[in-house]
Amino acid sequence: MILDKIKKSNDIKKIKPDDYALLAQEIRTFLIKKISEKGGHLGSNLGAVELTMALHLSLTLPEDKIIFDVGHQSYTHKILTGRKMDFDSLRQYGGLAGFPKRGENAADAFDTGHSSTSISAGLGLVKARDLTGGTNTVVSVIGDGALTGGMAYEALNNAAKLNTNFIIILNDNNRSIAENVGGMSKYLQSIRTAEGYQDFKVNLQNMLQKTRRGREVVDSLKRYKNSVKQLFVPGMLFEDMGLTYLGPVDGHDVKTMCKLINEAKKINHAVLIHVRTVKGRGYAPAESHPARFHGTEPFDIETGLPKANKKKAGWTDIFSTVMIKLASRNEKVCAITAAMPDGTGLNRFKNLYPNRFFDVGIAEEHAVTFAAGLAAGGMVPVVAVYSSFLQRAYDQILHDVCIQNLHVVFAIDRAGLVGADGETHQGVFDLSYLSSIPNMHIMAPKNKWELSDMLKFAVNYDAPIAMRYGRGTACDKMQEFRAPVEMGKAEILYDEGGVWLFAVGSMVETALEVREKLGEKGLKVSIVNARFVKPIDEDAVAHALESADMIVTMEENVLSGAYGEKVRDFVDRTEKQIPVINIGIPDEYVEHGNVNILKSITGIDADSVVKKVLEKMEL
Amino acid sequence: MILDKIKKSNDIKKIKPDDYALLAQEIRTFLIKKISEKGGHLGSNLGAVELTMALHLSLTLPEDKIIFDVGHQSYTHKILTGRKMDFDSLRQYGGLAGFPKRGENAADAFDTGHSSTSISAGLGLVKARDLTGGTNTVVSVIGDGALTGGMAYEALNNAAKLNTNFIIILNDNNRSIAENVGGMSKYLQSIRTAEGYQDFKVNLQNMLQKTRRGREVVDSLKRYKNSVKQLFVPGMLFEDMGLTYLGPVDGHDVKTMCKLINEAKKINHAVLIHVRTVKGRGYAPAESHPARFHGTEPFDIETGLPKANKKKAGWTDIFSTVMIKLASRNEKVCAITAAMPDGTGLNRFKNLYPNRFFDVGIAEEHAVTFAAGLAAGGMVPVVAVYSSFLQRAYDQILHDVCIQNLHVVFAIDRAGLVGADGETHQGVFDLSYLSSIPNMHIMAPKNKWELSDMLKFAVNYDAPIAMRYGRGTACDKMQEFRAPVEMGKAEILYDEGGVWLFAVGSMVETALEVREKLGEKGLKVSIVNARFVKPIDEDAVAHALESADMIVTMEENVLSGAYGEKVRDFVDRTEKQIPVINIGIPDEYVEHGNVNILKSITGIDADSVVKKVLEKMEL
Repeated sequence: MILDKIKKSNDIKKIKPDDYALLAQEIRTFLIKKISEKGGHLGSNLGAVELTMALHLSLTLPEDKIIFDVGHQSYTHKILTGRKMDFDSLRQYGGLAGFPKRGENAADAFDTGHSSTSISAGLGLVKARDLTGGTNTVVSVIGDGALTGGMAYEALNNAAKLNTNFIIILNDNNRSIAENVGGMSKYLQSIRTAEGYQDFKVNLQNMLQKTRRGREVVDSLKRYKNSVKQLFVPGMLFEDMGLTYLGPVDGHDVKTMCKLINEAKKINHAVLIHVRTVKGRGYAPAESHPARFHGTEPFDIETGLPKANKKKAGWTDIFSTVMIKLASRNEKVCAITAAMPDGTGLNRFKNLYPNRFFDVGIAEEHAVTFAAGLAAGGMVPVVAVYSSFLQRAYDQILHDVCIQNLHVVFAIDRAGLVGADGETHQGVFDLSYLSSIPNMHIMAPKNKWELSDMLKFAVNYDAPIAMRYGRGTACDKMQEFRAPVEMGKAEILYDEGGVWLFAVGSMVETALEVREKLGEKGLKVSIVNARFVKPIDEDAVAHALESADMIVTMEENVLSGAYGEKVRDFVDRTEKQIPVINIGIPDEYVEHGNVNILKSITGIDADSVVKKVLEKMEL
Repeated sequence: MILDKIKKSNDIKKIKPDDYALLAQEIRTFLIKKISEKGGHLGSNLGAVELTMALHLSLTLPEDKIIFDVGHQSYTHKILTGRKMDFDSLRQYGGLAGFPKRGENAADAFDTGHSSTSISAGLGLVKARDLTGGTNTVVSVIGDGALTGGMAYEALNNAAKLNTNFIIILNDNNRSIAENVGGMSKYLQSIRTAEGYQDFKVNLQNMLQKTRRGREVVDSLKRYKNSVKQLFVPGMLFEDMGLTYLGPVDGHDVKTMCKLINEAKKINHAVLIHVRTVKGRGYAPAESHPARFHGTEPFDIETGLPKANKKKAGWTDIFSTVMIKLASRNEKVCAITAAMPDGTGLNRFKNLYPNRFFDVGIAEEHAVTFAAGLAAGGMVPVVAVYSSFLQRAYDQILHDVCIQNLHVVFAIDRAGLVGADGETHQGVFDLSYLSSIPNMHIMAPKNKWELSDMLKFAVNYDAPIAMRYGRGTACDKMQEFRAPVEMGKAEILYDEGGVWLFAVGSMVETALEVREKLGEKGLKVSIVNARFVKPIDEDAVAHALESADMIVTMEENVLSGAYGEKVRDFVDRTEKQIPVINIGIPDEYVEHGNVNILKSITGIDADSVVKKVLEKMEL
């Protein structure tokens, strides 16, 4: 295997050019095998094999810096920097991360995870290089999907001012996770198919100058415009913004890309190289179903089918079904996603109610203010979004939705610990950042029926309102408890005095387990399903205080500013002398790994809760 | 006065075209007079007089919707919708707001305050119109400064897909508050000076076609490109994105703007009208000093000088001075602002250390991740930003700075109640949203010397660290208390048992007053200057508990997730039976008005604190 010759950064330079194709093939085979076993991001990595090879051939690591936007396409980079052997632990606790990590390898220049950050970070590294007298090259690699995010544009706007080298590679596969949207996408499509010029020194203008007629044309034009460059240069939009545009170039042609990167290194300002790639390249099922193979569970290589049969409906599935029902009954209900129609379960809604469905691209800020506009115009928008991505729109929720008290529904998916994607994707802050915002209401369902009831409630409650639920299988226990949802009211499941567990959403199921285990020790345990994190149900807490030996709050969120602090405050203000334990994620980032392991480590699993209760009781 | 004929929306249509210039003049005179008396935003309003008149002449309010980006340029709109008489209460408590408010008048279509939201909100209103069968016109008015904000681009990207009418007016005065920056600004400059075409049906291409030589040129070109449009049409960047571009047009020519707006209304997709205006138009001091007259205190109309002589240094002034000192001693110190070099006090830094100064435009998201990149490259960036604007970068702080534990310093100006700008600008959430983020450290200085000490400390502390301080005059009391700043350590000012006041930043001065007033009642009062909100100084609280009858926390921030909750938690966990009172902003938006009034209303002034303490003591 040629791949075996690559043990560390820069070893790829020993490979003969004639063997590049074979090396790419071996990397693809390796990636498909490992991801089929462990799960992970497949399509984007298969698409970026040659591009990453070209970067490693043209740069010297770790001196030169590559920032991978989002970062899930960095697997080939990890292989080429000596981490091939670590792929057996990919995305597992303590193992190889699925994203670049400065702490993992010196060749990882900047941690990524969320979209559209790479140009900003790259500009920072460029300025730091110049201020410290460095001479290294900085390259930001950004997809066309990530280019729909506003901060990428903010960064491009600033990159235009540079009078020093900075290379931006636009990895254009005409997709985000789903199909790409918007004006920029249409524009890229128009130049994607244009005749590319691979050597920027030679362009059609020069060719024209060589003929008499050509010179006439050029002269005529010069009377109207200073430059005719825009006639002949694809990528004029980028040139208009002040960037040099090179491309488009075939992103599976290593040698040409190397040539372009080396040309780009000589330019004393920001250069954008437009690289066309195919998502899923080299594995037919991934080329045909790019959304399904964006991030995948373990699968069978032959058939492309998932190894584990999905048996139970997920939270997202329930949301998906209820949204359709609500839309059929209420013409005002709209659905908004930021480039996640599959992930958030809105594809069926999209097909049935295309006029009321909006995929705005990777643009959470716009998504939220757009929803505020829809609500101001009398519609009922439901913004379906992952918890960690909604962090992007904190100001828009506070400033555009909640000051005006607009009826926008937030369906917050992937809340709580999400597992293999790690620090950047854990949805453990939403209860805190939303609680700080006046006029906001926050709910979390204990099981799938409650998700349905709460979504119906939210669509009919005329104020900003959020519902958060987790990743994966929806809880289908506790069907017997289904009291109507009322604003600010908790649901008391077991009213038996003793230890009162006040659990939020996913933690209600954990509370059942805690109750069983404490019951075995002879303790009486009551359970309250909090339902509302804002406002908290003070009556339920007051009721509990009449018979409680202890109050335990349980939430899959950091403690600061979330549910537990509010309950403790209330209890403390009653001046009733009773111990309160707050269970939640500690004030630390939670790395990637199996969710059950992470729950145990962060102390929010049933055993940890039981232990803390017994310690407090000095039993 | 012609202006007297305008008593309500649409009355302007009764004015004869020949009188437009006179009306504009009267409005300007009125604005200058009122703002000179009350303070407010002058330059942007003087620049938008004719544009607003043209909009009101071409539209029917409130059916048609105008969304003013940022909103501080809406004074003429307020005058033309019958609110002229309310200007005597401009920006005062209970009076006319300085920004559009749906609650104030039906003609205010959407509340604004922060930058770059108007296109997103406008798109929402457009879609709601179409879904509900409406036929009204929606217009978003956005400045070229606001166009440097990423969410404006996210919205443009989505607007490009529209197949229904939507009008975007680019109010281009070549400035944000300071001079504008970046590639887009340079691009606008290039087309600003181009020959505009006012009737989009006639363009140079057509003119060319009329001559034999012209036809030859066009024919030659067509062999290379499908369209020669881009040669002759300014605004090709917008056209490339899928918008129709009209302009540039003189923004002080009412009739031509009306013509263009009426043309634009006929187009079945998104249209951008590029309007050139002069900030401060018609008042020489404001034209000459646009930054100074962006937002102004009361001033003398003759001289343009402020009425009140500034006597004491503000928090911003101290920050400004210390930054220069630190930069002179440490070559790694950089300064970053998002379009606020004056407001944040970085102008002197900019002049002395231009290579280490970065104005990134109205782009807080980019600012923070750019800072993270600088830090990853070994520099020490200080991001100077207003509290309410930093909300925009919550995710970037969490995701790009704090996960990697990078040494970025946040100098958070205008924290706490800011007064006349109202809900959108109150800086009362930062302690909450920052506290939820792991690895973050948060400080607040009690007086100007401590600001200096803390900034020095921050620049030398290798981790994410924020310091928040208020608007206006810096506290110059308590010079006798100047213990060295240590991570996580509070400063005990009075250790005398009794009521222990734990005060954050600005509230330390209030605590002195509370101490005096409670002293008059014969109560012993101790004071702790919290210094650190994260981490809190548990030792100081434990020390207080030894002699305390009561703990009172005081902060100029919402209570949820902030300092008081953390102190209460700690006290509660000690199981010491002692009452705790948390003083802070209630869970409501705080409107515009004099800061002292707002402090009293929100219950954070000394009298309110005294009252709560006495009530709790049942005295």
